[in-house]
Amino acid sequence: MIEIIYQPSQDQYKKLKQRPQLERSDMEIVIQKVYDGIAEGGDYELKALTKKFDGVDIPNIKVSDAEVMSAYKSLDADLKIAIEGAKANIMKFHEAQLSKGVEIETMPGVNCIQKSVAIERVGIYIPGGTAPLFSTILMLALPAQIAGCKEVVLCSPPTHEGKIHPVILATAYICGITEIMQVGGSQAIAAMAIGTASIKKVAKIFGPGNQYVTAAKEKAISYGVAIDMPAGPSEVLVYADETCNPKFVAIDLLSQAEHGIDSQVVCVTTSDVLADQIANEIEELVADLPRKDIIVQALKNSCIIIESEVDKAFKFINDYAPEHLIIASESASDLASKIVNAGSVFLGNFCPESVGDYASGTNHTLPTYGWAKSYSGVNVDSFTRKITFQSATPEGLVSLGKLVIPMAEAEHLQAHANAVKIRLAFLSQQKV
Amino acid sequence: MIEIIYQPSQDQYKKLKQRPQLERSDMEIVIQKVYDGIAEGGDYELKALTKKFDGVDIPNIKVSDAEVMSAYKSLDADLKIAIEGAKANIMKFHEAQLSKGVEIETMPGVNCIQKSVAIERVGIYIPGGTAPLFSTILMLALPAQIAGCKEVVLCSPPTHEGKIHPVILATAYICGITEIMQVGGSQAIAAMAIGTASIKKVAKIFGPGNQYVTAAKEKAISYGVAIDMPAGPSEVLVYADETCNPKFVAIDLLSQAEHGIDSQVVCVTTSDVLADQIANEIEELVADLPRKDIIVQALKNSCIIIESEVDKAFKFINDYAPEHLIIASESASDLASKIVNAGSVFLGNFCPESVGDYASGTNHTLPTYGWAKSYSGVNVDSFTRKITFQSATPEGLVSLGKLVIPMAEAEHLQAHANAVKIRLAFLSQQKV
Repeated sequence: MIEIIYQPSQDQYKKLKQRPQLERSDMEIVIQKVYDGIAEGGDYELKALTKKFDGVDIPNIKVSDAEVMSAYKSLDADLKIAIEGAKANIMKFHEAQLSKGVEIETMPGVNCIQKSVAIERVGIYIPGGTAPLFSTILMLALPAQIAGCKEVVLCSPPTHEGKIHPVILATAYICGITEIMQVGGSQAIAAMAIGTASIKKVAKIFGPGNQYVTAAKEKAISYGVAIDMPAGPSEVLVYADETCNPKFVAIDLLSQAEHGIDSQVVCVTTSDVLADQIANEIEELVADLPRKDIIVQALKNSCIIIESEVDKAFKFINDYAPEHLIIASESASDLASKIVNAGSVFLGNFCPESVGDYASGTNHTLPTYGWAKSYSGVNVDSFTRKITFQSATPEGLVSLGKLVIPMAEAEHLQAHANAVKIRLAFLSQQKV
Repeated sequence: MIEIIYQPSQDQYKKLKQRPQLERSDMEIVIQKVYDGIAEGGDYELKALTKKFDGVDIPNIKVSDAEVMSAYKSLDADLKIAIEGAKANIMKFHEAQLSKGVEIETMPGVNCIQKSVAIERVGIYIPGGTAPLFSTILMLALPAQIAGCKEVVLCSPPTHEGKIHPVILATAYICGITEIMQVGGSQAIAAMAIGTASIKKVAKIFGPGNQYVTAAKEKAISYGVAIDMPAGPSEVLVYADETCNPKFVAIDLLSQAEHGIDSQVVCVTTSDVLADQIANEIEELVADLPRKDIIVQALKNSCIIIESEVDKAFKFINDYAPEHLIIASESASDLASKIVNAGSVFLGNFCPESVGDYASGTNHTLPTYGWAKSYSGVNVDSFTRKITFQSATPEGLVSLGKLVIPMAEAEHLQAHANAVKIRLAFLSQQKV
């Protein structure tokens, strides 16, 4: 069911560290049409596209407070406790990320400050469907709140009944979101990027989505709106050694595979005995899982790689740069120091990916598709900008002038030099 | 020479806070051809394109250590002192930005860690031309070094003599860069994004450039390579009140205008007397400047806006989100608290933008074109990723299970729940 690759050749290695080419069917025209429609028709077009794509009439775009409150009240009691427990952990870990800022006197009389300032207005997209991914609301709304974003709008598509799934509304309420819009797909992204009467333009859009949502997020950039990160299918890499439990490794691989048929699942080990054990456990465990059909598809792009040495295994892991990395070993804490490229790392035999997906406190919005080489997962900084401030006393400007004037003149930027010279001339006149 | 706008109407306001539409002539095909050429021809194509676009033959792509050393030795002594002084300030301010990381026990037995890890290999692009912008090397190479990037490659186009301007080589040497490549334009960006025999693929590309370089940087994203930020023409906004010196304001506006004919220069004040004084000073000062022709062009897109109240003025400033903001006032420190959207802020009458362009210690690679609403200027974090780590003891997993299992099951992800359940079953068997 899962391929085992013994000491990959150079060619195999190169292929293994890459991801499958994404199907980028040419959606440019479709997406541009949605943007043009929203730019021209605003809310009217947003409702029309909801009718067209989601098949439902929505009388109003914003969900009423009464509907939100009713969803919150009807939330299953155990689930409510779980969501609030997860919220507490996520708050704790993300609050600790708040930057205290920097203030340094670089030369006598020259003061430089770096201040984290929250992005004023952000948009969060939560996909719909039968399995509502309400956990992503916690991962985006809570850091936004901690960062201090003044306005957060959440868009999520209506179900066939013409309403957002109540668990999404309830979770949004628990996370303090008051602007909830029952629109989805590329039209929701376009509305947040352009602005309509109901949905004010945002500065940055966060959240997962299908290929239309992804393409619409990319398009948002040309409307001056930032996005959280480039998208790609979710993935896990498990490093396993003789101190792991093969059954735990198998269920961790399966829990990634159940996300979708394009999920990437890789196991790296130095033990061929272990590779066989894990493969057998996978066959055994998959039978009972409700999303078996998806899993079997996903496992077709997946494999167990046997490397000859631990360092070679970690070289591959860093070359692959997995979104999620589980180190299934009793020496996980020591091995962690070998990690350079990864989104989120799960250490030891009692820390499955699913704890980070929901509740440990870390964020689950992470760079996929090798982007962990250059992107961070979502964190409090994702919702802020670092603004710098500087001031100089007359004394400071005299010192700076000795540096700035020769450099500006060497760059042939005379007015830059003169901005200092004119001030220095003024100061020396003052002294006389 | 500069337009004065008295209390802009709503329509005017809307236009003023926007930037002029950028000419995006369709370069997609040209740029894709360059990428395809580099992908196929590697170094050979890189040399051929350098011949074609820069008109010179380069025998080797990498600049020899001997040439770099000779450039360093021939550097003007005063300029060397200035560059080293600027380096010291930039190092000081950026070293203070290094993150100490976060480590939190979110629940008993559940440990969450956030660690800043440097991007392994980055590329820096420095434009060529008669006025070599060597100051940008300091602004990119020093934070990369502080962050701990293992490999930094610098690309810069050769001049008509077939060599990189010596001041660029000397500055790169001062900043510790050892991989210097004498290639420029979109072909240099493509080489860093794809990789050739001489230039290994990078994970992130930084630095300014013309429209071809900008388009090639955007294209790099589809090759899995990140970029520093979206590009746009440089800009300054000066807020001036009665406690400013109109001559200082005028030269600051002019020093931005000399960058290029597309530079954006805006002054906001509440005083019409001051507006006239500043306009007069501009007319007087421009006459002596060598880049007068460029300045006169740039001032055509520029204006002085008179607002009725200080708060209205700052509302406009935040709506405009300037790259550089000078607060030309004796109350600058108090007024700074009103700033939400800006790249870098210069406080008071003795702190012209040019001090931050070169030497105060802050970074000069900043978000333009309104991107200050969602992007930071370059800082140490631009060269790192935040990787999260988590671990759980058996006790910790028991606590987490109460949160994870109901949430995973509510999202219909049974294998996610089972990853915890199977471990909990194992633990309870152990106890028996």
